[in-house]
Amino acid sequence: MAITSWESLANEKRQATLNAIPTKWRIQEPIPPPSELRDVTGTYIQKFLTPREIEITELDAYGIAEKTTTGEWTAVEVTEAFCHRAALAHQFVNCLHEVFFDLAIEGAKRLDAYFAEHKKPLGPLHGVPISLKDQFHVKGVETTMGYVGWIGTFQGLKDDPRSRVFESELVRELRALGAVLYCKTSVPATLMCGETVNNIITYTNNPRNRLLGCGGSSGGEGALIALKGSPGGFGTDIGGSVRIPAVFNGLYGIRPSSGRIPYEGAANSMDGQNTILSVIGPLASTARSLQFLFKAVLEQQPWLHDPLVLEIPWRSELEQETRTLVEQSAKDPSKLTFAIMKHDGIVMPQPPIARALDIVERTLKQLGHKVIEWSPPSHKTGMELADAAYSLDGGADAQYHFGLSGEEPAPQLIVATGLPQKTALEIAKINVAKREYQKLYMDYWNSTSEVTGTGRPVDAVICPAAPHAAVIPTQYSHVGYTSVINVLDYTSVVIPVTHADKSVDVNVSREFLGELDENSYKNYDADVYDGAPAGVQMFGRRLQEEKMLVLAEYVGSVVKK
Amino acid sequence: MAITSWESLANEKRQATLNAIPTKWRIQEPIPPPSELRDVTGTYIQKFLTPREIEITELDAYGIAEKTTTGEWTAVEVTEAFCHRAALAHQFVNCLHEVFFDLAIEGAKRLDAYFAEHKKPLGPLHGVPISLKDQFHVKGVETTMGYVGWIGTFQGLKDDPRSRVFESELVRELRALGAVLYCKTSVPATLMCGETVNNIITYTNNPRNRLLGCGGSSGGEGALIALKGSPGGFGTDIGGSVRIPAVFNGLYGIRPSSGRIPYEGAANSMDGQNTILSVIGPLASTARSLQFLFKAVLEQQPWLHDPLVLEIPWRSELEQETRTLVEQSAKDPSKLTFAIMKHDGIVMPQPPIARALDIVERTLKQLGHKVIEWSPPSHKTGMELADAAYSLDGGADAQYHFGLSGEEPAPQLIVATGLPQKTALEIAKINVAKREYQKLYMDYWNSTSEVTGTGRPVDAVICPAAPHAAVIPTQYSHVGYTSVINVLDYTSVVIPVTHADKSVDVNVSREFLGELDENSYKNYDADVYDGAPAGVQMFGRRLQEEKMLVLAEYVGSVVKK
Repeated sequence: MAITSWESLANEKRQATLNAIPTKWRIQEPIPPPSELRDVTGTYIQKFLTPREIEITELDAYGIAEKTTTGEWTAVEVTEAFCHRAALAHQFVNCLHEVFFDLAIEGAKRLDAYFAEHKKPLGPLHGVPISLKDQFHVKGVETTMGYVGWIGTFQGLKDDPRSRVFESELVRELRALGAVLYCKTSVPATLMCGETVNNIITYTNNPRNRLLGCGGSSGGEGALIALKGSPGGFGTDIGGSVRIPAVFNGLYGIRPSSGRIPYEGAANSMDGQNTILSVIGPLASTARSLQFLFKAVLEQQPWLHDPLVLEIPWRSELEQETRTLVEQSAKDPSKLTFAIMKHDGIVMPQPPIARALDIVERTLKQLGHKVIEWSPPSHKTGMELADAAYSLDGGADAQYHFGLSGEEPAPQLIVATGLPQKTALEIAKINVAKREYQKLYMDYWNSTSEVTGTGRPVDAVICPAAPHAAVIPTQYSHVGYTSVINVLDYTSVVIPVTHADKSVDVNVSREFLGELDENSYKNYDADVYDGAPAGVQMFGRRLQEEKMLVLAEYVGSVVKK
Repeated sequence: MAITSWESLANEKRQATLNAIPTKWRIQEPIPPPSELRDVTGTYIQKFLTPREIEITELDAYGIAEKTTTGEWTAVEVTEAFCHRAALAHQFVNCLHEVFFDLAIEGAKRLDAYFAEHKKPLGPLHGVPISLKDQFHVKGVETTMGYVGWIGTFQGLKDDPRSRVFESELVRELRALGAVLYCKTSVPATLMCGETVNNIITYTNNPRNRLLGCGGSSGGEGALIALKGSPGGFGTDIGGSVRIPAVFNGLYGIRPSSGRIPYEGAANSMDGQNTILSVIGPLASTARSLQFLFKAVLEQQPWLHDPLVLEIPWRSELEQETRTLVEQSAKDPSKLTFAIMKHDGIVMPQPPIARALDIVERTLKQLGHKVIEWSPPSHKTGMELADAAYSLDGGADAQYHFGLSGEEPAPQLIVATGLPQKTALEIAKINVAKREYQKLYMDYWNSTSEVTGTGRPVDAVICPAAPHAAVIPTQYSHVGYTSVINVLDYTSVVIPVTHADKSVDVNVSREFLGELDENSYKNYDADVYDGAPAGVQMFGRRLQEEKMLVLAEYVGSVVKK
């Protein structure tokens, strides 16, 4: 059978990424199949590493910065350890698009020289390796975003002088903060998918349970960080693309409100669609690292370099106010109130997620917090608004980029064909409906001040991030839990809680909310999901990042106990 | 000749507004024609008022609040004085759409009772009359926005339960602050016009020179405040609609960046177009009143009630920082730097405006400030982006609303007919081009730190707000000076400087920048413009309201000296 041109291009690119891994780090022994070994994190990956490499890579971003900004650890040693571990991670689950370890080590040497000369770090991220979703342009490497037609181009444009030269604003800022960039992580082509699949790297598996997907679209980030091949990285989220891979891989991840982290100069799908803006947020293994990365970016005053970023610096007073609330609540837990939404009226969470929610609710109640039931305006309406926003162009953008190479989209990627584009009046109508929905939701939130007992509305709302703990390939069917938050432009953090456990997470007979719910019920397989991370989403109002990051740290810590 | 239905509806409505003025305040004597008396502000209007009414109405909003919030003046007395003066203003220049003096006086009585009972004001605007552009819904009266087809409806919808009941969010907040609402001011139908003309009130003249127009679209606000029939009011601005009437009437007016003042629940044109959002800003006779009104609204935490408002409270630290900069500059003026843009490369300002710019430049230089020349990215590009954003729907929204009654648009209102609507991809392309333009402009602004000598970029940029001092009816041809600022989403304040003076403001032979410029040159008539206010626009970066309001106070005061 003849190999078509796009297939050979994709194969070459896939091989080039593998070839970029130094020979010494290539795995020679066969990796057991998922049926024999689901989880390749922890002890399995450790087998390939030295104790020192394990010591370095198993510290979180915040902890690493404590070592590298004080000169206790060198940038080079830390960088090499993460390059090695990322190389292993990729060989386990196909989580990388671009590997540029040589450039990273060169950069780390410059940082060490800087420290030696100035006796101080370059910035708060001095010597901290940071991974990036393959939407960010980094000098020296290309950006494919999972499209075969982007190979050897700049966002599909041939002979563009920006190719392998131009850097996204966030990349410039991370460098200025002292971060070391060393790899770019896998995404589904189009970015509009809760799994990570494309014709270049094929499929990114979930490292905690390789029978499952790692989530998407920042799926490579989720998989890599779960394998501790990165202490933290940046993804993007227009419908859940930071939160889904974070929660599927047992991590923390934040979808900030739009206008806080600079998107300027990053590649994107459907660029210019501004009914719902995609936003950038970090993923990390600890809440403190998430906060640390978020805050570090703001120190760069991105509003002076990205016209869509708001001049809202890290608000220490809001952080402190929230910390005080948390501290006071140790004595008087009624000061801090939560709401819980067990389901969205469309799809019930499967047993592992329902149990995760129960754990959070029980824990908060045991601590004495008031936890009210969340009965918001219809999430179905919210989900329909999100779907409308995602399909304004009738699939034209995706069609165009697949068409550059003639590649066939993976079945998970629902690419509309032949649908008409929306007109100005139709788009305006959607924008008005979205604003009206936001207003309704806002008024509902305000109304909870009557039931919290604090005189204030609830501080945060807890709900599923997805109905399932990670995802059986091709079975992601309901993105509404995350996409409604994008419609509202709320701040949302996912928090790891537990793991799917086939001995307790069993389907019990129940009524269905509808067809989607019935399908989700039937697709639940306690055995296949066993071991997958099960977490929750916690959201706050718009532009409440400082508050939500502190509360995520609190809720994450009490749930862990 | 038979009167068509829309004409009789319009006549009835016009008459109803006049009838709502108490008989005692109706002018019996003939008002001299503009050819005999251009300026009806000042001594002319004072003839109809008592000394006490003059004392009250000639104080600015800030000054009035000092009296009414301390109980020195009652809300009723202040309200009655402004109702009287507004009634006169309307009879001079047709600046009102809705008159609800009875409701206002009732409200003022309640405020006085509140003060008597609690010995304190209801809020910072206790007893201060505030006028509103006829886009805001106020209980008890209707909103026509200049459309005959809206008479007796809610935004053109018949039998809508919100009619005469629903209130816009800003209205709710103004009431909570203690303001007294008493009238709504005239606008051009469609709002997309630099003059104020509609089939209901016909034309709003400029009270400083009735041969000219008052500007638009917040034209009634400009005319009313210039006549001191209001101490301050709120307009909206998508292309200059606050700044144009402010500068044409010798007032201060601010176009804030989007997301500060709540638009929620106000009527609008092309609602849902979100490439360039219309914003709300106050107009007033003094800079301190502008700041006072702006700050007061933020005290209501509008971000809890309008999903598009950003959680950015009044930043006292930014205000203070700017005040310190101003104070320090008395000793070391090099601390504060300005840029000046004498023209935008498209249309040169006519002589009165060129002179106003010269006055500002000379004053700032004499004080020792560095004033650099502003050489930004092409304003032609910016203006084209604005025009593209305004015409996404191909005129469909305006056509629809004119069609409700079948009325004929005034010739100034350029209403597209039969133009195709833009599609999703075309709109996305405009949005991307707009963002790229904003980025270019931002980078240019950053680059000025190399020439200011302060290490910082320029603090503010001064340029024309329009090429002309007010406008000869039907001759508004170039809105680019204001609309480019909307594309950039910058903060901009207009500052009164001088008046057109036929003895010095004469055309001198020069080369033209193009056809628009040549037309503007030819249309200049030193005699007709004589006496019209001539001011400038001063803009700062995005979301710099606190800074720009303080700088406007400073520049306005030094120019006055």
